Amino acid sequence: MIDIKEDERLSKLNHSCAHLLAQAVKHLYPKAKFWVGPVISEGFYYDVDLGDHTLTDDDLEKIAKEMKKLAKDGKRIYRVEISREEALEKFKDDPYKIDLINEIPDGEVISCYTQGDFTDLCRGPHVDSVKECKNFKLLKVSGAYYKGDSKNKMLQRIYGVCFDSKEDLDNYLAALEDAKERDHRKIGKELELFMGHELVGPGLQMWLANGATVRYELEKYIKEKEVKLGYEHVYTPYLASTELYKVSGHWDHYKDDMFPPMKIDNEELVLRPMNCPHHMLIYKSKLHSYRDLPIRIGELAPDFRYEASGAVCGLERVRQMCQNDAHLFVRPDQIKDEVSKVVNLILDVYKDFNITDYAFRLSLRDKNNTEKYFDDDDMWEKAESELRRVLTELGIDFYEAPGEAAFYGPKLDVQIKSAIGHDVTLSTCQLDFLLPERFDLTYVDENGKKARPVVIHRAILGTFDRFMAFLIEETKGVFPLWLAPVQVKVIPVNNEYHLDYAKEVTDQLKDAGFRVELDARDEKLGYRLREATLKKVPYVLILGDKEMADKTISYRLFGHKETETVSLDDFDKMLLKQIKERR
Amino acid sequence: MIDIKEDERLSKLNHSCAHLLAQAVKHLYPKAKFWVGPVISEGFYYDVDLGDHTLTDDDLEKIAKEMKKLAKDGKRIYRVEISREEALEKFKDDPYKIDLINEIPDGEVISCYTQGDFTDLCRGPHVDSVKECKNFKLLKVSGAYYKGDSKNKMLQRIYGVCFDSKEDLDNYLAALEDAKERDHRKIGKELELFMGHELVGPGLQMWLANGATVRYELEKYIKEKEVKLGYEHVYTPYLASTELYKVSGHWDHYKDDMFPPMKIDNEELVLRPMNCPHHMLIYKSKLHSYRDLPIRIGELAPDFRYEASGAVCGLERVRQMCQNDAHLFVRPDQIKDEVSKVVNLILDVYKDFNITDYAFRLSLRDKNNTEKYFDDDDMWEKAESELRRVLTELGIDFYEAPGEAAFYGPKLDVQIKSAIGHDVTLSTCQLDFLLPERFDLTYVDENGKKARPVVIHRAILGTFDRFMAFLIEETKGVFPLWLAPVQVKVIPVNNEYHLDYAKEVTDQLKDAGFRVELDARDEKLGYRLREATLKKVPYVLILGDKEMADKTISYRLFGHKETETVSLDDFDKMLLKQIKERR
Repeated sequence: MIDIKEDERLSKLNHSCAHLLAQAVKHLYPKAKFWVGPVISEGFYYDVDLGDHTLTDDDLEKIAKEMKKLAKDGKRIYRVEISREEALEKFKDDPYKIDLINEIPDGEVISCYTQGDFTDLCRGPHVDSVKECKNFKLLKVSGAYYKGDSKNKMLQRIYGVCFDSKEDLDNYLAALEDAKERDHRKIGKELELFMGHELVGPGLQMWLANGATVRYELEKYIKEKEVKLGYEHVYTPYLASTELYKVSGHWDHYKDDMFPPMKIDNEELVLRPMNCPHHMLIYKSKLHSYRDLPIRIGELAPDFRYEASGAVCGLERVRQMCQNDAHLFVRPDQIKDEVSKVVNLILDVYKDFNITDYAFRLSLRDKNNTEKYFDDDDMWEKAESELRRVLTELGIDFYEAPGEAAFYGPKLDVQIKSAIGHDVTLSTCQLDFLLPERFDLTYVDENGKKARPVVIHRAILGTFDRFMAFLIEETKGVFPLWLAPVQVKVIPVNNEYHLDYAKEVTDQLKDAGFRVELDARDEKLGYRLREATLKKVPYVLILGDKEMADKTISYRLFGHKETETVSLDDFDKMLLKQIKERR
Repeated sequence: MIDIKEDERLSKLNHSCAHLLAQAVKHLYPKAKFWVGPVISEGFYYDVDLGDHTLTDDDLEKIAKEMKKLAKDGKRIYRVEISREEALEKFKDDPYKIDLINEIPDGEVISCYTQGDFTDLCRGPHVDSVKECKNFKLLKVSGAYYKGDSKNKMLQRIYGVCFDSKEDLDNYLAALEDAKERDHRKIGKELELFMGHELVGPGLQMWLANGATVRYELEKYIKEKEVKLGYEHVYTPYLASTELYKVSGHWDHYKDDMFPPMKIDNEELVLRPMNCPHHMLIYKSKLHSYRDLPIRIGELAPDFRYEASGAVCGLERVRQMCQNDAHLFVRPDQIKDEVSKVVNLILDVYKDFNITDYAFRLSLRDKNNTEKYFDDDDMWEKAESELRRVLTELGIDFYEAPGEAAFYGPKLDVQIKSAIGHDVTLSTCQLDFLLPERFDLTYVDENGKKARPVVIHRAILGTFDRFMAFLIEETKGVFPLWLAPVQVKVIPVNNEYHLDYAKEVTDQLKDAGFRVELDARDEKLGYRLREATLKKVPYVLILGDKEMADKTISYRLFGHKETETVSLDDFDKMLLKQIKERR
């Protein structure tokens, strides 16, 4: 989906449409007071104060009608610069605008934009005429506190979007509808993948049996790949003494994202925001020779981060997540080779999931932010130039993004475009010279001397939570066969005659290791077929007289109308092949 | 191992031996002051104050020698009852004894026991003569605070044990030695199974790659069994609002075992001590018909319990554990059948692990303890008699134990005797009428009316942590093939000539799915073989000229000296068979 704020023309157009909205509101509600009406990624909004009146959908329609009329009328939009005194006089009836004027620094130009009978305080720019704003849509209205502070008055925020042509608008609205359809929270509920509950708390999701099956398959999948590449998996505890995070530097640079510590006896324990410090201790627990490196420690690692309850979102932004994490302890001369292997693993995995729209981002520190980033210019210089050099040598096409590094080092992030247009970091590969220093990690080099290893932090699927959200939106819940919670639904045409055969087929498929469900409920065939479709089961078997007599099965693939009849043995083989090929 | 405190004769004998110890100490250190010398499960100890002198092993030997002399001398032990005034006068030089005398309630008889030149304040009883105490062993000395309070003075605690015959003593000492050898903390370190670290904190173990492999196999094993029995597995978050535990009753009856809550914004979150409340919410999230029951929700569930830092022990007693948990939501008429299935699963699993020394315990509440147990006589009466009835009907041989129930209901616990003699609860099956009530769980019965399900809490392997501790002590770290972290070690006789063949064999075995390691280090064959034995690898392959020429392998099974030569194909098949049979 297009980002309207990022497009110069659309940005101007939507800004003008916000004024058009305000003008229409003023016509219908002469006592209306106005706060701000900015452009956002999804279009524009305007915050209005209508006293006691709460806007309904009907009201929105009326406002839209008035806007259409005004647009057709086609008044020019012109700009006037005025003095502070003139501004204060002009908007004296609107306390919100007075507030805005008072916030404008001395010496700055104050401008107004006027169209017909309506003038608004505004920096601009705007389009030439309200005529240009005719292809708009008002999307919704919601409450918003004045200045975003819950202690202030609640205003009403009207959202809209505007394009140059009806076609562009229609395309955008269709994409918006599609995004709603793909919303992982909606599909998660429909397919019983996960749920939240107020007694558990915001940002803490429970993965129901269906979602848990998908997750377990993902876990097995990535673990198997990693084992083949020489990773060793561990389990480490989810909390630790705060001292550990003082050593690692999290306490100084990451505390705001952590849960508050728990005091017991003379100790202070805290939920871990990351598991790297635990892995550093494991590396440190024995002597290593240069011949032992690289050592690759992996973990499906639950981590805990504080997010404001208003910021959490489904599985996409949570307070407890499970990382597909690993730390590679390498000699300096092994950096390039290991980074290359990580990149290859990422590409290999993306192929399995058919992810083609991705870009490599070299995430660097913001030099001026010594609070967020560990303060050591030499270390950063070394790490950033080393990672840049390796990526260049490997021929990886990347762009650079300052202010996106981890506090301990630069990252190679893989950014993907999700189905609903979000830019998401899916995988990451980070170069870290800091933690080996902080934990005094060593190995014995060729000359019998102590040397310092380098740590590569990496996550391929990122967190299972976010990956699941991505996968749901990508597939609309139609998971590939190997991930589908229920792979085959068996439906006897008539429970009286065909149940035994259906049970036989179900048992055989279960024994072969497939996830199968028998639907022998006392419901009509059509009803049961529709429900299997709603639940997005890949294969539905329909077993009647013919199948029973011939010892065959008839199957219908999700999204198809036709039915194929084959032997159970052939069906088995077909499924196994598809699972193996991860289709 | 025998519990000395539980044996009347041995208890008396060890008590007398403690006096003999004190007498010898007094002879060697005339200024010694004495606190108490009780019998414990492992023998006896005496707490002594020797001023600035710290006892060494040499000192212990000298004390033992003096004890032997005194025992040989064979003085009679006789009892005298004295008045409080006489007692205070007699022990006026020993402030600890004065303390003890002052703690004896008025009206209680005060008695002393005397042997030769030594008299001790004591309730008795004792053996007739110190001669009977000759078969003793002083085990160790350690520090102990006076009255167990770290603000008080540190005394020295001398431990010993005594038997009627030298043979009994020797047997006991051998068993003690064996227990030390089996100690899961010791083996855990040697085999790199798990580790702790002070920066992480007490009771929080990190499972290293070897231990994690065993655990992952155990997880897969039990999950597979459960899936076949119709369990649905979920993942739920490890913390929740404290409100959840107020609803469940944990807050009233289990708070002392929980971590302190974390306050963020307007919320109060707490690490979960159990995961049942989460599963109750999952059940409650949709409507259920009587036809849907039983519903079996399983989870490999990390839970967190507060334990004093002094009480934690290896993997046996920890602050973070992972439960092999499940909750079965059943109709009242399904209780018997479901309990029976759980018992069958337990017995099935015990067969796979060769666990034969177990007993069923019906754990009931302590009626007088309304703080620990939910206070509802009718509910308890119903639950306890129902579980007792079901067990009787199923023909299960059980004993009853009041005060061992969960706060919400009675339990069928399976007690096993561990290799080092500990009585441990391994599996549990609990009947719960309370939580369904607290969470207002329902299903729609045959008549379309709302009915209340019953919840069965069950854990087969208990926690993976404690099960691992048990398994290590049981096997001394020689895991069965299917669990062994490294199943096959491949050793080329000569790295120069046989390395390629060894690599070929290693790769083939890896491809076949075995956990294989190649040891091609520049070390002598004998050294590499010894190390494989120390690491308790089940199969070691020794590959030399003959094997290379014949395309065979020679293997040595752990604990055996002879080597067998077979084709790689036959070796593969043999391993697969053993893994399948879980030998």
